[in-house]
Amino acid sequence: MLYPPERLAHAQKAIAAAGLDALLVTPGSDLRYLTGYHAHALERLTCLVLPAEGQATLIVPRLERPAAEASPAPGTGVLVVDHQDGDDPYPLVKQALSGPARAVGLSDRMWAVQVLALRDALPAARQRLASEVLAPLRMRKTPAEVAALREAGAAIDAVHARMGEWLRAGRTEAEVGVDIGRAIREAGHETVDFVIVASGPNGASPHHATSDRVIALGDPVVVDIGGTMPSGYCSDSTRTYVVGDAPADFASYYEVLFAAQRAAVAAVRPGVSASSVDAAARSLIAEAGYGDAFLHRTGHGIGLDGHEEPYIVAGNALPLEPGMAFSVEPGIYLAGRHGARIEDIVVCTADGVERLNTLSTSLVEL
Amino acid sequence: MLYPPERLAHAQKAIAAAGLDALLVTPGSDLRYLTGYHAHALERLTCLVLPAEGQATLIVPRLERPAAEASPAPGTGVLVVDHQDGDDPYPLVKQALSGPARAVGLSDRMWAVQVLALRDALPAARQRLASEVLAPLRMRKTPAEVAALREAGAAIDAVHARMGEWLRAGRTEAEVGVDIGRAIREAGHETVDFVIVASGPNGASPHHATSDRVIALGDPVVVDIGGTMPSGYCSDSTRTYVVGDAPADFASYYEVLFAAQRAAVAAVRPGVSASSVDAAARSLIAEAGYGDAFLHRTGHGIGLDGHEEPYIVAGNALPLEPGMAFSVEPGIYLAGRHGARIEDIVVCTADGVERLNTLSTSLVEL
Repeated sequence: MLYPPERLAHAQKAIAAAGLDALLVTPGSDLRYLTGYHAHALERLTCLVLPAEGQATLIVPRLERPAAEASPAPGTGVLVVDHQDGDDPYPLVKQALSGPARAVGLSDRMWAVQVLALRDALPAARQRLASEVLAPLRMRKTPAEVAALREAGAAIDAVHARMGEWLRAGRTEAEVGVDIGRAIREAGHETVDFVIVASGPNGASPHHATSDRVIALGDPVVVDIGGTMPSGYCSDSTRTYVVGDAPADFASYYEVLFAAQRAAVAAVRPGVSASSVDAAARSLIAEAGYGDAFLHRTGHGIGLDGHEEPYIVAGNALPLEPGMAFSVEPGIYLAGRHGARIEDIVVCTADGVERLNTLSTSLVEL
Repeated sequence: MLYPPERLAHAQKAIAAAGLDALLVTPGSDLRYLTGYHAHALERLTCLVLPAEGQATLIVPRLERPAAEASPAPGTGVLVVDHQDGDDPYPLVKQALSGPARAVGLSDRMWAVQVLALRDALPAARQRLASEVLAPLRMRKTPAEVAALREAGAAIDAVHARMGEWLRAGRTEAEVGVDIGRAIREAGHETVDFVIVASGPNGASPHHATSDRVIALGDPVVVDIGGTMPSGYCSDSTRTYVVGDAPADFASYYEVLFAAQRAAVAAVRPGVSASSVDAAARSLIAEAGYGDAFLHRTGHGIGLDGHEEPYIVAGNALPLEPGMAFSVEPGIYLAGRHGARIEDIVVCTADGVERLNTLSTSLVEL
């Protein structure tokens, strides 16, 4: 079990230090992080009211009460209260605060319908974001969290290792995608979060998913896949394959990308800035003349969310610390022709870096 | 293709009538409904700015531009503008408004991080909900939308029809759930949205998912399943099975439930209130002495979202109209023992009701 009950106490200290009266946390990764309760987002209000001091309250719809009580939440001392269909649940939030609130932190992915209802229910409370408090906690992974990400990395590596079973000329991207989706589940993921199979010119669009395009001999194919493990932690890894022999121009810029991704991984250690990891990849790609073809940031943090802090992007001066986990995924995209991306999840360690995806990043010709 | 380009114009009229200057719509069903663009929610801002009059603008991250341009959105006259990683995208929202806004409608599921950023970017604009404008449009389904829901209903019916292949004594709920999930995809759904297999005492918890409980002979099992079709429209249907012979007490309250669900379906016609459909089921269940065991509302609307308006709940005086589609799903839950629920999606027609799930609601003993 990854859920450590001291998280609520740590968060309460941070809430007080941030000058907030409470966090208000609806279903999602923040709620799972704090209480271990993995709730589905619904139009019915589920909300953890976590004051800077004192009793935490988990407000749930009555028909979710058994699920909430079966979760780790009550074991942490959280008080579970419920509301019935047709009743206004927002007065329960006010009661749980047990005093006037001047500033509350809302979970970043709370729905607008709840944000505005809370604005009306607590008109004197300035609304800020829970991430002010929670992002610094969530982005510094504990050894147990790193182990969960390592397990997720191994699971997605096992899928990439089987790519030759599915990725062949004559098949459509969508057909290959179905096989990959099945394998992601077979490898131990609870959900398939995304499957990108971008062949030939589709590879030049970084967020292409799959299509009915038939893969041809000589096509480069970007395969970017990920899912969520039963632990709640996510995987995310990209490899670029070539079906048959690589076109000469492709092989030459793949070498640039290979070196850039490797340099960015090697740049990771405590104290260096997130932006400097981005620069390590970007400078090599720019020097080789492909600067305009690297369309996105170098990476994103990963944990209970597939994308979270820290973002590895120009302008982010955040100094890396041990336990920070993120993707390193430069790409080169030539519109109308093809593209390539290489992505590993890495974690900053006490004295350097550990790759959580351990397959080779050399070009694989299938 | 379900996407009719006149929706933007209809919405603009409704925006003006509601006294809003614009809708601001981030990824989700509202965006898909308005533009046909099925975008994934990301920390990078994607936002449709739809003013009450004039040019609509779709703001996208640069790496999503190809996907946005491949969607039906540009064909409706929406202007696509993009922003790069590291740049602040919110000035683009201000530009797209082309004038001071006093009131904007935010998509109901917009993330708080964006709600608060928009509050800061447009401090003079009162934030309201886009559903004020969009819910009345979205809950009145066109014939093409009803056809899409009918297709979804047939797909999930095909899964229920196969239940005898999987639901047997000696198997765990989770094992049965895996088989059902595979069948939901095989029946034509693009995603599996939920799989509830609630056997024996678990059936008394309406939102139980699956567990490692081994199903035993004589267990009632509530199976509530649904997914999303390639059209974007959702399915949702519940049947309660018994593995072997039903316990006598169960069989007796199942008869009450059967009659109550049938009565609620029969109550649906234009002009009757949503609450009266709830009352039709609830009164029969209460008269039989099970009022306290019916823990939730009778139903929820369904369309591009699995739960949307209209809600079939006490207090909702909304008069039903042709094209409104929703679940009718009363349940009886006896804590510690077992439970039952019967759920069909129905649509209000010009002179009555059509069931979009057409399997028998009689108790099935497997």
